[in-house]
Amino acid sequence: MIVYGKNVWSQIQNDEQSIENVYVLQGLKDHRVWNSLKELSCPVKVVSKKELDAIAKCEHHQGIAARVKEIPTYSIEELLKKKKGTGLYVALDGIQDPHNVGAILRTCDCAGVDGVILCKHNSAGLTPAAIKASTGAAYTIPVSIVTNLSQTLKKMKEEGYWIVGSDMDHARDYRKGIYDVPLVLVIGSEGKGMSPVVKKQCDYMVCLPMAGTITSLNASVACAILLYEIYGQRNPV
Amino acid sequence: MIVYGKNVWSQIQNDEQSIENVYVLQGLKDHRVWNSLKELSCPVKVVSKKELDAIAKCEHHQGIAARVKEIPTYSIEELLKKKKGTGLYVALDGIQDPHNVGAILRTCDCAGVDGVILCKHNSAGLTPAAIKASTGAAYTIPVSIVTNLSQTLKKMKEEGYWIVGSDMDHARDYRKGIYDVPLVLVIGSEGKGMSPVVKKQCDYMVCLPMAGTITSLNASVACAILLYEIYGQRNPV
Repeated sequence: MIVYGKNVWSQIQNDEQSIENVYVLQGLKDHRVWNSLKELSCPVKVVSKKELDAIAKCEHHQGIAARVKEIPTYSIEELLKKKKGTGLYVALDGIQDPHNVGAILRTCDCAGVDGVILCKHNSAGLTPAAIKASTGAAYTIPVSIVTNLSQTLKKMKEEGYWIVGSDMDHARDYRKGIYDVPLVLVIGSEGKGMSPVVKKQCDYMVCLPMAGTITSLNASVACAILLYEIYGQRNPV
Repeated sequence: MIVYGKNVWSQIQNDEQSIENVYVLQGLKDHRVWNSLKELSCPVKVVSKKELDAIAKCEHHQGIAARVKEIPTYSIEELLKKKKGTGLYVALDGIQDPHNVGAILRTCDCAGVDGVILCKHNSAGLTPAAIKASTGAAYTIPVSIVTNLSQTLKKMKEEGYWIVGSDMDHARDYRKGIYDVPLVLVIGSEGKGMSPVVKKQCDYMVCLPMAGTITSLNASVACAILLYEIYGQRNPV
């Protein structure tokens, strides 16, 4: 798999085992990138802009790309062992835009989330575009890719987790949620929201107030507001 | 100016005066779009995908584009008259990614912001990409484009506004901000933060806790978390 972008590079350079090849733009004006390449033992190739565009299959590579091993993903059992405190996971139900998946991974890292659950059939996976948008968080946040999200949430409920969905119908104001318990926050797709089978697994729903004329927030923005409310309840000032 | 996208279309169709021409994709499967076209008196042209890609200069048009008059912008004096309650404005200092500008406009609409101030020299303007990313909020949130943001903020301070910057240095936790006053929230660029002259105008700085390894949130995500904290303080549950 090819990944690209300076932030992604700054993450993967710490894990040389995962890198197979590095491609760097001829004449790239960034000393940090060149310095980081000096210490690597894997093959580095200096290429033209045209070549790098072709390798990254886009022009947003910022002058650096690498062929890497697939990012390791985890089973739900392994993911649950990674929790550091009370336990906080984010599950994505139908987020198909890789930029949104990447943006959510980034925010999850910042807000101290223990892991992210993606649904194989209806969500974007760890694609190069998602990894770039994550600014490297795809390498720091453990991800589990499941085939049946509803069953996974049921299993997590049996393990003592509360499942909180985000939806406009039958929802309480998000500030009234109880978050100081082991928690899975489910984010539905922008267009369609959560699927009915996933909704059924939710203990309750939360919604964000909408004060204007636009009827919904971007999914990654809504996720961030909810995660920082959860963070705030768990870590009062 | 050409604008495109279904959400943008649903906003501008309410303001027929602003539309000069409509371009719709031949065979577009969306009854709402076709129905909305029936009632219009401006010229509508049905075009091929190739033609629409060329008109929109991209492929993300979702089958609908329009040539419209420039979105009206306001002077600071006019913008200040638009406040509905205590007064809440967002100023962007160096946000150059039009998708971020659009995403911020969308969130500003949802969070009840009275207006957005863009700096002419260092921020993206109301470009077609920003308008598309705003999902129509570029038509609902009043915008002022200023040449000297520092001077503008100084003037707003004289009008009784508090200027709150977002920065990591010398900042208080964002939950400790005092927001129940006339307020301007300043969002700096992702890479460089706020410019020093703009920082000088801030009454105080707020920061978001970072619990992981990534060192910053996306600018539009950070803006959203701050705006919902302000909304929450002003509208307690």
